[in-house]
Amino acid sequence: MIEVDCHISIKRNGICFLDKRKIGLLYGIMQNGSLSKTVQQLNMSYQHAWNMISDMNKSAASPIVIKRRGGIDGGGAELSNYGMEIIKEYQMIEQQVMKMINQINVEINL
Amino acid sequence: MIEVDCHISIKRNGICFLDKRKIGLLYGIMQNGSLSKTVQQLNMSYQHAWNMISDMNKSAASPIVIKRRGGIDGGGAELSNYGMEIIKEYQMIEQQVMKMINQINVEINL
Repeated sequence: MIEVDCHISIKRNGICFLDKRKIGLLYGIMQNGSLSKTVQQLNMSYQHAWNMISDMNKSAASPIVIKRRGGIDGGGAELSNYGMEIIKEYQMIEQQVMKMINQINVEINL
Repeated sequence: MIEVDCHISIKRNGICFLDKRKIGLLYGIMQNGSLSKTVQQLNMSYQHAWNMISDMNKSAASPIVIKRRGGIDGGGAELSNYGMEIIKEYQMIEQQVMKMINQINVEINL
């Protein structure tokens, strides 16, 4: 079976600040209300997750994830309103692109 | 500036057999009529290029690249008709997807 696959990323000033993996992390935080639970689900180290979050926050227009009191070890994380908007926007983009990819998959001739 | 980027790959039975890098290699072979010149342009080792070609040939319905007499060291490579079809098809898919991505880039709100 032949099929087209597509990886979407969003760049800010030429630097990738959102991709499927980062959105997965944000989505997990939103769903679980817990970073620890999310990193377990994604099989990702806590430190790596924080580095990703830190990169996203630095390159975004305003913070996407807000650390709750207690810091890296004792606290948690929650999405800002902007973070929630970003997930919504990314999902809309993904849906649009995947709709087209599915159409191409019907027509593909390789 | 915010922009959406998209990496397209084509899978055959779940395994990626074409992506931007592989298509770049095929396109170079087609344009240059020479693998040596192409690997130089792409800053890729000759052996790595042959491995990529070998993978593509194995996973495609029929050979994409045909070795000319002389083998890996003494010979060259040329695209089969199927290889040329593949480039054309990939470029059409890419154009369709990029047209949509450009439209999304106008509408994006992050």
